[in-house]
Amino acid sequence: MSQAFLTDFHHAATIGATANNGVDRQAATSLDGEVRLWFAGWFRDRDRRVLIDEIGNLFGLYEWREGAPFVLVGSHLDTQPLGGRFDGSYGVIAGMHVADQIDQEIAAGTREAPRFNLAVVNWFNEEGARFAPSVMGSSVFAGLFDLEEMLDVEDLGGVSVRKALADIGFLGTDDGPAAVGYAEIHIEQGRILEREGIDLGVVDRSWYTQKLDIEVLGEQSHTGATAMADRRDALVGASEVVLMVRQVTDDFPEEALVSSVGQLVVEPNSPIVVARRVHLVADLRSDSPEIVQEARQTLLSKISALAARDNLVINVKDFDIRPSRHFPPAGVELAERVLAQQGFSSRRIQTMAGHDSVALNTMVPAVMMFIPSIDGVSHCEREFSTDEDMIKGLAALKAVVLEMLNGQFVTDEG
Amino acid sequence: MSQAFLTDFHHAATIGATANNGVDRQAATSLDGEVRLWFAGWFRDRDRRVLIDEIGNLFGLYEWREGAPFVLVGSHLDTQPLGGRFDGSYGVIAGMHVADQIDQEIAAGTREAPRFNLAVVNWFNEEGARFAPSVMGSSVFAGLFDLEEMLDVEDLGGVSVRKALADIGFLGTDDGPAAVGYAEIHIEQGRILEREGIDLGVVDRSWYTQKLDIEVLGEQSHTGATAMADRRDALVGASEVVLMVRQVTDDFPEEALVSSVGQLVVEPNSPIVVARRVHLVADLRSDSPEIVQEARQTLLSKISALAARDNLVINVKDFDIRPSRHFPPAGVELAERVLAQQGFSSRRIQTMAGHDSVALNTMVPAVMMFIPSIDGVSHCEREFSTDEDMIKGLAALKAVVLEMLNGQFVTDEG
Repeated sequence: MSQAFLTDFHHAATIGATANNGVDRQAATSLDGEVRLWFAGWFRDRDRRVLIDEIGNLFGLYEWREGAPFVLVGSHLDTQPLGGRFDGSYGVIAGMHVADQIDQEIAAGTREAPRFNLAVVNWFNEEGARFAPSVMGSSVFAGLFDLEEMLDVEDLGGVSVRKALADIGFLGTDDGPAAVGYAEIHIEQGRILEREGIDLGVVDRSWYTQKLDIEVLGEQSHTGATAMADRRDALVGASEVVLMVRQVTDDFPEEALVSSVGQLVVEPNSPIVVARRVHLVADLRSDSPEIVQEARQTLLSKISALAARDNLVINVKDFDIRPSRHFPPAGVELAERVLAQQGFSSRRIQTMAGHDSVALNTMVPAVMMFIPSIDGVSHCEREFSTDEDMIKGLAALKAVVLEMLNGQFVTDEG
Repeated sequence: MSQAFLTDFHHAATIGATANNGVDRQAATSLDGEVRLWFAGWFRDRDRRVLIDEIGNLFGLYEWREGAPFVLVGSHLDTQPLGGRFDGSYGVIAGMHVADQIDQEIAAGTREAPRFNLAVVNWFNEEGARFAPSVMGSSVFAGLFDLEEMLDVEDLGGVSVRKALADIGFLGTDDGPAAVGYAEIHIEQGRILEREGIDLGVVDRSWYTQKLDIEVLGEQSHTGATAMADRRDALVGASEVVLMVRQVTDDFPEEALVSSVGQLVVEPNSPIVVARRVHLVADLRSDSPEIVQEARQTLLSKISALAARDNLVINVKDFDIRPSRHFPPAGVELAERVLAQQGFSSRRIQTMAGHDSVALNTMVPAVMMFIPSIDGVSHCEREFSTDEDMIKGLAALKAVVLEMLNGQFVTDEG
């Protein structure tokens, strides 16, 4: 299993490979289409059905027991622009090889067909780089986001999700499989496991997160010929907002709150024109909802004072609010027990990042595990996990999935 | 002349008209192509030759004396994104009607053919919104910019000037006319004439200007999963730079220096990725070169301290340095004398904005005049000058051009 997994993992990383060992394969681009064809072909080579649902989620089915519902295992194959090789892809390809090995054992007669069937899933647009919000496909599947609303989302060039998926041939019509549970493995995207020398993390909850959509409106004018006193410069206002978003973390204990502005667009964006409008997105995250809400309140009142002082209009809207979500304790305990049996060290851990498992966990019992990530960096080309850590994670995922397939922690009721 | 001028002026403003009475007709776009066809057709309807040179400058020729060199009169028909109706277009269309009226008087025998011929010019890409630097076509004509280098300039989408001009059919092969002098009329883009109730400004010099090309390099990482202490956020650094550029004006007497950042691009510009790179352009202008140089030095040392503090790399390059240029006193005095004869009030004035006349003035004796501009706003849809002020300017321009055609202030030697 290990060598076949590594071969597939490193092959998939060639699709959209960048000059510095990263991958740039944004949702519903032609490169995403290419990796999806590879994923679907992999299952068809094994005579397995592939489903494509209406938001472009892809499922490869192992149906050992006719009519039985499915445990789902997977993650996402889309990446950030100039992203890494591991974020998402690791969990999908690990799921493929876990499924394949269990299937071979059943075919060889060394394992009985389990109680549930198994579906390996590649969720659409987890990253949200091209099309916001992130965690889109799994959230639609879990009923958290509206399908039509998401299909209408446009990228910065005005192309809709609907059109982009149709263009790469992955705007599906299938229903997804009937799910009773979900398992996902992912790189940590933090340094805790690496620092503590622990094999695996078992995620017990996600951080509370929310975004602020901020529009700063000034007045377009000539940079050379407009007196400083007469200007209403939207970019000066927006720059103040970016710094406020950074500085609000200082109001709380170290690392209790993370905040950022990652997207900012200037109009008209001409070197000799004072900006008319700047649109930016701020991101606030904490283990504590109260801290995020307090930070948000501080930002709203500072932004309001700024608008008044500089004669700007600043519109702020809350969006993409994601409450802190707890994974079921029974699943956390199951994973801890199975990992101990396999001889792996583990610890409980929180996720600051969003994940497909956090959406799925609102629908069916879910288990999420992390493997170590060197320097904790992700969403960049130098994101890195060792083959050894990936192989350990593969064994851990297989053991957990087997328990779930046999009705530990998940039931027919979902 | 007045009614025909107003009809043409208001017609040209329909090409690329915006919802709020502005014009969006950036250089070498299809709308720029459309207004150029209208310009060329206007001269061909009058059996006048039109020349297109290699940087897309367009000349309509009135040749009354075979082999004689030309006085040039004009401005530019390109605009900023969501720009105004007056900036540039006024000067071109005023030039067209001045030429036409002089021609009719010669045809009617009420005026002798002057010593020089007259060419009306629409300079390519004065605005520099799509293709930087600005004042491109007239600077190439005057030998200040290299032709090939300018043809290779690309817009943010990677389209070159060469390709964009070819696409609209205006990548020419003609030599421009042999020039002995240049006259231009333009809106003030400031409030001095309006505030003082003066009919016309005679420009005696341009401000010293320079731009700084600034690249802020951080490290791309996950907004949610990267500890604040581990971040190297290029957008936070760039926001500090924007505010430094604004604040440096406070080091000098009020309005002695104007500064701005009008263009800023974030990479990768995803809501959940800490920015890797931000590219921005700062613009510094003053009547005093020493003030610009002192402000530049302050910015360089503050930027250097910021880079060290935040562990960023910030690359700063000087470009588009335009020294303060004096218009020939003989031309200023000629205009003042002619305006007084016409019964118009005038004052000397400086231009903070760049103009085609500033480039032409390095090559041949040039005269530049301003008409009042309501509220002094420009590069925006609410830019406005009255029909009455435009008509006064038309009469003033005709009177000045006639003197130049008859060898006042300009000579065969240029």
